Amino acid sequence: MRFAVSASCGCKVLTIDKFGFTTEEKFSMRYLLNDSFVGGVTNPPIFFYAGNEGDVTGFADNTGVMFELGQEIGALVVFAEHRYYGESKVNGNKDYKYLSAELALADYAEFLGWLKAGGGYPNCEKSPVVVFGGSYGGMLASWMRIKYPFLVIGAWAASAPVAWFENLTDCNSYNYKVFKDFNAANPNCPQNILRSWYVVNDYSKTDEGRQKLTDYFDLCSPLKDANSVNNLFSELADAWSSVAMVNYPYPTEFLQPLPAWPVNVMCDYLTDGNLTDDELVKQIGAASKVYFNYYDQYPCFNLSEGDIGLDDNLWGYQACSEMVMPMCSVEGATMFPPQEWNLEEEKVACEAQFASVGIGFRPDWMVTQYGAREIHSASNIIFSNGDLDPWQAGGVSDNMGNPTIYIFAMTDAAHHLDLRTSNPADPDSVKQVRAAEFLIVKGWLKDYYKHVLRMSPASKLAQW
Amino acid sequence: MRFAVSASCGCKVLTIDKFGFTTEEKFSMRYLLNDSFVGGVTNPPIFFYAGNEGDVTGFADNTGVMFELGQEIGALVVFAEHRYYGESKVNGNKDYKYLSAELALADYAEFLGWLKAGGGYPNCEKSPVVVFGGSYGGMLASWMRIKYPFLVIGAWAASAPVAWFENLTDCNSYNYKVFKDFNAANPNCPQNILRSWYVVNDYSKTDEGRQKLTDYFDLCSPLKDANSVNNLFSELADAWSSVAMVNYPYPTEFLQPLPAWPVNVMCDYLTDGNLTDDELVKQIGAASKVYFNYYDQYPCFNLSEGDIGLDDNLWGYQACSEMVMPMCSVEGATMFPPQEWNLEEEKVACEAQFASVGIGFRPDWMVTQYGAREIHSASNIIFSNGDLDPWQAGGVSDNMGNPTIYIFAMTDAAHHLDLRTSNPADPDSVKQVRAAEFLIVKGWLKDYYKHVLRMSPASKLAQW
Repeated sequence: MRFAVSASCGCKVLTIDKFGFTTEEKFSMRYLLNDSFVGGVTNPPIFFYAGNEGDVTGFADNTGVMFELGQEIGALVVFAEHRYYGESKVNGNKDYKYLSAELALADYAEFLGWLKAGGGYPNCEKSPVVVFGGSYGGMLASWMRIKYPFLVIGAWAASAPVAWFENLTDCNSYNYKVFKDFNAANPNCPQNILRSWYVVNDYSKTDEGRQKLTDYFDLCSPLKDANSVNNLFSELADAWSSVAMVNYPYPTEFLQPLPAWPVNVMCDYLTDGNLTDDELVKQIGAASKVYFNYYDQYPCFNLSEGDIGLDDNLWGYQACSEMVMPMCSVEGATMFPPQEWNLEEEKVACEAQFASVGIGFRPDWMVTQYGAREIHSASNIIFSNGDLDPWQAGGVSDNMGNPTIYIFAMTDAAHHLDLRTSNPADPDSVKQVRAAEFLIVKGWLKDYYKHVLRMSPASKLAQW
Repeated sequence: MRFAVSASCGCKVLTIDKFGFTTEEKFSMRYLLNDSFVGGVTNPPIFFYAGNEGDVTGFADNTGVMFELGQEIGALVVFAEHRYYGESKVNGNKDYKYLSAELALADYAEFLGWLKAGGGYPNCEKSPVVVFGGSYGGMLASWMRIKYPFLVIGAWAASAPVAWFENLTDCNSYNYKVFKDFNAANPNCPQNILRSWYVVNDYSKTDEGRQKLTDYFDLCSPLKDANSVNNLFSELADAWSSVAMVNYPYPTEFLQPLPAWPVNVMCDYLTDGNLTDDELVKQIGAASKVYFNYYDQYPCFNLSEGDIGLDDNLWGYQACSEMVMPMCSVEGATMFPPQEWNLEEEKVACEAQFASVGIGFRPDWMVTQYGAREIHSASNIIFSNGDLDPWQAGGVSDNMGNPTIYIFAMTDAAHHLDLRTSNPADPDSVKQVRAAEFLIVKGWLKDYYKHVLRMSPASKLAQW
């Protein structure tokens, strides 16, 4: 990180129910604010991160580009935390009654209104706001521009799978891309991983096998029985799936502390096409440790602690209500065991999982509400995607002839790499795209200062 | 009316709670659909009226322009009824829990998705939708374009007071314009009306005076006591206020059956600057009858039946929650008794009025949610306003340099006159503006067929 976050942390009290009026209950939304680049300018640009599913500090730590460009142009840099996540709990998160994308966006609108009115920072009443986000945050960023064009002049939506919904994106796309990433490292690597599911399953059926799994995976407590292998399976699936997202060209700490090009580092253990079962399991253990414990920060692998740090249950609710994103694994086209996507079964499972709080399974709603790839009438949105990223297939790759929608495909780039601080190890494509993105954002700002605020072309703010 | 509505009437079952998931309850939204102009074309234009606060048939009867232009270009003409109003009750309207503009817009989005998917009409999956609306419906139309640009290619927002909110529009604007309208008919007219409040009040204090009021206003039942004069006052205020809205150049039946230029017809009774008190009250009675009973359709004036036919309680809830529109009467600048606007008092009164159902008084919310006059980043919206219309002051009169926002000011025009069927008596300004509006809508359609659907320029649909 070239830029420390060094942001002050605050909370803004916001209305919980934005679209009904029977309760005026409030919650505190956390935000981070860095004004070190502003230098006393009136109406400075505001760079606003539309927080997604997790603690906001994690996103601030991994979205260095807002600080990098923010420093260059003197922006006020603000990160908002998504309602329910991190410290921004709603009614103590005792239910999920007010957890939805539209309410989060409305929070950001209410917050920005307050911020610009001087509540959170002085002299920014007419500041232009550019909204940033990656992944689900990128979806929110693009939707913020669509829904609140009067509040945000443009959106930088990185790796935003806005169309990962029923009938719009092949459910196998994610796992196919994971396969491709591992296959590019070494073709034997995904084959070994595919084989490992069956071998590990066999091992889980005997005492001797379970002892070996416990040893090879450095488990903190021994695998009890054949059922407990399911925890191991889901951790392994998470490791392979997630590492493809964060296959960055230099060491990072987004989901986990990882080395440069972690897929390659993993696959270095799995290049041999003729491993015995025992060798295979041992190598799988070593490879998975790259994700779980690369820097030996843990004395052993605690199956219940290997998680990615996001509040799974909250996202689980979103994924079971409006963010129903089809996932499957087609035999012969992934390195995972086959798994079908069945909307009706998903509905039943979701309704069972959240029966106690009540849930509506609405797989079409996000498309109705935000239009997915129908961006012919939107404006000032950057959609960037990396071709190593398993989420790429759900993004926008066609601007429908709309010149104010910018589509960038980055080769050799994983999930929203362009949001990270510039790094000498960045692929050329990312260097070039990021430079273009900087120019586009500056163009939006210039346009706003010149044509909306009608500032003199000679003024500093209108000169980017 | 040159065009009969001749629409089929249907209902679409929609989700009540769009932004939460704890209930999947539904309601039936009524809509009117006229396909007589389509002629079997695939993907015909859809003209969609965003229903406002009242029975949808009333809006269909008074928005002839959709049929007029619809016939010319072969559009499918659809009117949707706003949730809670008319026959589109929600949970029997036993509470107002889900009554808000954003939920109504989301209904229209859900409905249009269903309609275009073939649920309501065949072969219109890729139809372009133009949204129309007048008054609050005009606000909804413009907001529909802002919030759902991927669903509606443009909006014709007639007399939409999108900025009639706290600190954005002078609260006396409405009553000042009413004064100006009456003053233009005859300067003695508003002076007589202003004087009448005090004279009628004096009359209400004696038995003899009340008997005269009963006679001069043709009341069905005698005024009981001094308090009952308040009903008469509010009816009179409604009459003068409303007739200025519908001061059309030919006989109409929007709020009430009225003659051409009803303000002039009223003021013809009030031209004398030297009326005695008794003459004044008699003439006020005659003038007000122009609004209440011009065609002698009622044998007498029933104070409780003189209403405009909209469900006052529902709108009252909206006006006390998010549609808080400041109104006042400044001494010397209106023909009404002075009345201040006090936000805090309004809040107390609203909370008291709706204490049993619970209400949130949110005077800033619509500005946060829709941006009021900040339309620099919107596109394809027509904002038209008539200069006789008391609502004009709350509209958009500056496109902020945005060439895709069209501002039309019509001289000699009352509330959304341009939405009505063309009439030889229309002022030249309205004829000219309507012609321009037709061209703009055709331009949007042409652009969509040519550039989004990429149809041949030679195709009929791409030729307007």
